[in-house]
Amino acid sequence: MKTKISRVNFDEIIEGINQIEADTILIIADLNVWSAYSKTLDLENKIKDKRIIIWKAPDGEKTKNFTDYESCLEFFISKGIHRKSHLIAIGGGATSDFAGFVASTLLRGLSWSIIPTTLLSQVDAAIGGKVAINSSHGKNLVGSFHLPQNIWINSSFLKSLPEEEYKSGKGEILKYAFLDKKIFDLLNKDKVDVLVSIEACADFKVLVTEEDLEESGRRKTLNLGHSFGHAFEQIYNLCHGEAVMWGLGVIFKVYGNQCLVDQLSKLKTNFGLEHCEPPWLHKTFPVDDIMIYLKRDKKTITRDSIDLIIANSPGDVSVKTTLFSQIEEDLEKAKDELKSFTF
Amino acid sequence: MKTKISRVNFDEIIEGINQIEADTILIIADLNVWSAYSKTLDLENKIKDKRIIIWKAPDGEKTKNFTDYESCLEFFISKGIHRKSHLIAIGGGATSDFAGFVASTLLRGLSWSIIPTTLLSQVDAAIGGKVAINSSHGKNLVGSFHLPQNIWINSSFLKSLPEEEYKSGKGEILKYAFLDKKIFDLLNKDKVDVLVSIEACADFKVLVTEEDLEESGRRKTLNLGHSFGHAFEQIYNLCHGEAVMWGLGVIFKVYGNQCLVDQLSKLKTNFGLEHCEPPWLHKTFPVDDIMIYLKRDKKTITRDSIDLIIANSPGDVSVKTTLFSQIEEDLEKAKDELKSFTF
Repeated sequence: MKTKISRVNFDEIIEGINQIEADTILIIADLNVWSAYSKTLDLENKIKDKRIIIWKAPDGEKTKNFTDYESCLEFFISKGIHRKSHLIAIGGGATSDFAGFVASTLLRGLSWSIIPTTLLSQVDAAIGGKVAINSSHGKNLVGSFHLPQNIWINSSFLKSLPEEEYKSGKGEILKYAFLDKKIFDLLNKDKVDVLVSIEACADFKVLVTEEDLEESGRRKTLNLGHSFGHAFEQIYNLCHGEAVMWGLGVIFKVYGNQCLVDQLSKLKTNFGLEHCEPPWLHKTFPVDDIMIYLKRDKKTITRDSIDLIIANSPGDVSVKTTLFSQIEEDLEKAKDELKSFTF
Repeated sequence: MKTKISRVNFDEIIEGINQIEADTILIIADLNVWSAYSKTLDLENKIKDKRIIIWKAPDGEKTKNFTDYESCLEFFISKGIHRKSHLIAIGGGATSDFAGFVASTLLRGLSWSIIPTTLLSQVDAAIGGKVAINSSHGKNLVGSFHLPQNIWINSSFLKSLPEEEYKSGKGEILKYAFLDKKIFDLLNKDKVDVLVSIEACADFKVLVTEEDLEESGRRKTLNLGHSFGHAFEQIYNLCHGEAVMWGLGVIFKVYGNQCLVDQLSKLKTNFGLEHCEPPWLHKTFPVDDIMIYLKRDKKTITRDSIDLIIANSPGDVSVKTTLFSQIEEDLEKAKDELKSFTF
């Protein structure tokens, strides 16, 4: 089954839900988003002839734990739902990660759709069917692949988005610029319209993930910037997209070339992020901590190595299986220089 | 990917594990089976150049809960495992249900294999990739479809099997007799060799599940006897296979014909189960309780109906979508007769 991705307004979302072939709709909605938009959506009145059951999820990553996973499943089961029920996630990437994992395991799998409400989820997190909750040892370590039936993208949600969330989306968009030359060209302008890039990034991700759902080949390249990025996200408690931006910088610096760093710096400025500084700047570059998180990364492929994504120029990326010992050596060697590395 | 199913001895199991392309092997073993067979298997000495990590599961259905699911996942993650690790379940159907669900969700899915150690799991539970844990509202309500790579069937394990477990396997084999005329003929003899039927049942299930993994068509017929069977299993706390046998009786009586009941009675006797009596006999036939469990069944397909599997003769079965209100009416009508119904 392929995902149908569409740019819609609120009325078209309602139309889409009414067309779903299911007599029961399960909603998992981010609590804050629900507070802000439940009146606008008005599902209870506008959805005809379907039973609607709503579970509100705590905001952000906080919901992606075993306890909420169990509570949510038991809640829906207690309502007497059935296999042909359809689940809809309303919220950012954390909400759709969680909701998708619930959908993939409730009664051995329900069909589902997403209404992504953040920039990050509209360009990345909602697309491609990767769903998960967190382990106490790291993010997204428990999950599955479960493609949504529909992704309804409505940019109206972005109007109320906090600045931090915007920054997170922009960081992830920067990654796409180095995966696809066309996106790079779109962003390599003095004034960038972020909304324009949503469609390009989403389409690119749909293409790659349909070709390789379970990440055995090309999909791996979508992890560009993420191996170090995930480590920074946890070490410094950063938002995902910003962490990916720093991850891109370090992979370009250590395994790429200066031209890539300069290009990244230029795009960062175009996005209005020129004052944003790396968290390690004027401190110690955290090699030991990075190694701990790298070894727990899902992209680890043997006891001793991980698939790093390496770029040569925008659109020219490759997978490089690299020994942990090699990475540690490379980072140790670059450590002093990295301490003052910024872009 | 298809499952490779093979009849093997202990040495051939070791050979099979050594051939798996993974440097890390995760074992989920039924505690009792592990106590009895870990020396015979001697994995730590006989498996070469692979890291082995063992998690022992409580006996039977007790392990299929959210708490053990979380503990088991966190245990493996804490050991620094990776995506190319391979998981092996050693035990009966409950152990493989649980282990398979862990395999399907750990790091978004690991490859796995099964060493089924009970009659029920060798003929049925281990085959077909249905994996799950239980909800507080019913069995197997949280899970997925995740085909194992290998199923290594060694009938030596059956020598130490308790009588109750044997009965459970026989009950499930009776189901196969009504799904496939060849299996019916194999069992329609005065003295039946149970071991001979293992291969026939396993092969039949592999065939059906490969044709329809996610149970959208023919696979549904494997639920023959299970809609009422699951209810009896929970109402009377019976072993699975025995409950299925009573489920077969009731579906044949209410929705089939007397000939099917007589044939079932004959096979039951051939299996040495002639003294086994229905749990409702000389009491009340539990219509209300059955309806509660039916409505929670995963085979429920709308708010109002369920797919019942109906038989006409051995090998001639069909799916009949039936309203709950109809089933309740039918059972109420037959209630007095069912109270004294035995076979």
